Amino acid sequence: MSDVNLSLTEAHELAVRVLTQNGCDNQNAVAVSDTMIAAERDLCHSHGLFRLPGYVASLRSGKVNGNAKPKVEKLAPSVLRTDGNNGYAPLALKAARDPLAECAMETGIAAMSLINIHHFSALWVEIESLTEKGLCAMAFTAYTPSVAPAGGTRPFYGTNPMAFGWPRTNKPPMIFDQATATQARGEVMIAARDGHVLPAGVGIDAKGNPSTNPNEVLEGCLLPFGGYKGASIALMIELLVGPLIGERCSYEAESADNHDGGPPRGGEILIAMNPQRFGTQDPYAHAERLFTALLEMDGTRLPGDRRVQNRAKSAQNGIFVPQSLHDKIQSFL
Amino acid sequence: MSDVNLSLTEAHELAVRVLTQNGCDNQNAVAVSDTMIAAERDLCHSHGLFRLPGYVASLRSGKVNGNAKPKVEKLAPSVLRTDGNNGYAPLALKAARDPLAECAMETGIAAMSLINIHHFSALWVEIESLTEKGLCAMAFTAYTPSVAPAGGTRPFYGTNPMAFGWPRTNKPPMIFDQATATQARGEVMIAARDGHVLPAGVGIDAKGNPSTNPNEVLEGCLLPFGGYKGASIALMIELLVGPLIGERCSYEAESADNHDGGPPRGGEILIAMNPQRFGTQDPYAHAERLFTALLEMDGTRLPGDRRVQNRAKSAQNGIFVPQSLHDKIQSFL
Repeated sequence: MSDVNLSLTEAHELAVRVLTQNGCDNQNAVAVSDTMIAAERDLCHSHGLFRLPGYVASLRSGKVNGNAKPKVEKLAPSVLRTDGNNGYAPLALKAARDPLAECAMETGIAAMSLINIHHFSALWVEIESLTEKGLCAMAFTAYTPSVAPAGGTRPFYGTNPMAFGWPRTNKPPMIFDQATATQARGEVMIAARDGHVLPAGVGIDAKGNPSTNPNEVLEGCLLPFGGYKGASIALMIELLVGPLIGERCSYEAESADNHDGGPPRGGEILIAMNPQRFGTQDPYAHAERLFTALLEMDGTRLPGDRRVQNRAKSAQNGIFVPQSLHDKIQSFL
Repeated sequence: MSDVNLSLTEAHELAVRVLTQNGCDNQNAVAVSDTMIAAERDLCHSHGLFRLPGYVASLRSGKVNGNAKPKVEKLAPSVLRTDGNNGYAPLALKAARDPLAECAMETGIAAMSLINIHHFSALWVEIESLTEKGLCAMAFTAYTPSVAPAGGTRPFYGTNPMAFGWPRTNKPPMIFDQATATQARGEVMIAARDGHVLPAGVGIDAKGNPSTNPNEVLEGCLLPFGGYKGASIALMIELLVGPLIGERCSYEAESADNHDGGPPRGGEILIAMNPQRFGTQDPYAHAERLFTALLEMDGTRLPGDRRVQNRAKSAQNGIFVPQSLHDKIQSFL
């Protein structure tokens, strides 16, 4: 089967139509589609339209509020919170961005917690707009258990991605976004769908034995990147998006979820810093010198630069959706 | 040669005597000794008395100001800065702690940058006192190039450790402290001293080939933990302690250093968050439930718990210093 070629506008319209016909209001449908199509555009397929069936499932099961109205409040001079009203993360993040940026601009560093959201998207999309305002930003979220802790053989941590972004003048920001799993669960799901074998070290099967079969790993669990050090970062993320902000840790999200295939309820935290409030002359120029020095070494590149290259290609050529996924999406209409 | 057994008090007095006789005032000598002996006590030998010769070298060469008087200032409502007056990090950190804690208590999240310091110690020591005040804290610092970037074969990043701490009631805090190098450079130095072989994947030799010989790796470079993901974290740390706060990145610290064997000038950043300002009921009890759930799985443990166990042993048995190191230390008197 060949892929279906869609322009970015066509893909976005399709996603909005599917979401609105399955219980989302227009605001929520547009926000979710914005992040899904941004991922498609940058060729992060695992966080693109591939997620649409999960969104639909969670609307149809009634788990997620497709008409959510997120509310932002200030909890302390440098801490804000967005209550997502049991909806999807993207609209909550849209509501959260400007208040967070304004707070960080003023106080130098600010945190935004997001609670009562269902997170199913790529993190880098979410901090891009903060970096475009000249802020340095971090984002963390958990998921449901899919990664073994150090020394363990069963899933406990979520894939627990973290993103970090640094603003650049007249250039796309430098942003990395990485799961603390060796691979993102979405990538393993794609490998399973496409019949690919996983690299060694990515995961173990249900009995705790190493496996390169994506289906076995989806039934077993992923391993943290870099062994116990990646596991420490996974634990840090559980603490930041669970106990710190008063939302569910991965293991709690799992037991509360209805397993409809959509995203569980969970939390997220964003931290934004204003480099212009740290007493330095020109933090941005200094960072450019660092990037230049790094790129002078053969074989190196900046994290996220492939995404930026892909973006330019997709603007021209549109995106390519596997026929089977396209058929599935059409069936929701 | 057998080891020399010293009580914690004897070891501390010895370190203070060596430092004061080589150019430190009492305040700086005590602060440096506090962190060195805390590391010895917790059996982190690579950051214990093993560092004393480097401290002495940097005092004798005149690179570091042994009489530094750190100054703290507020740059924004949630951003503080400590100027270390070209001294060692420990006294600057001592000055920084209470103002940072007070600021985070009030605004919910606060950052403290440290500039004009020479950092040669373990990070976990530095955030322990913040966690003891009920704060969640992070610390980052760079060093001089010893880790290859993703795709590269020459040192560019420092070992770039990060630490994260979470407070616990009636228990030592949960703190991890890990280099973004596969191993800390200090551990490789210890392996070289003791004639041990390194695990595969720790480093490459000067020609870029994998090596398990610690001397070859010290001449070549360390690899980041977890491949490109660890390298991303190393880059994040360079940005946080270089451009963001206006101090030297690892590659800049190297070219400015006099290579006396002591620590280069560099920066550090601490971020403290007050879990009681994030709108949750009982963040500490929630975290305890997470720890309990994690420890129910066979083979797991909390990061840093060995350090706490070692601490109890050292309080009873004192510490054991290799005769060769003890001889060297004596030669400084």
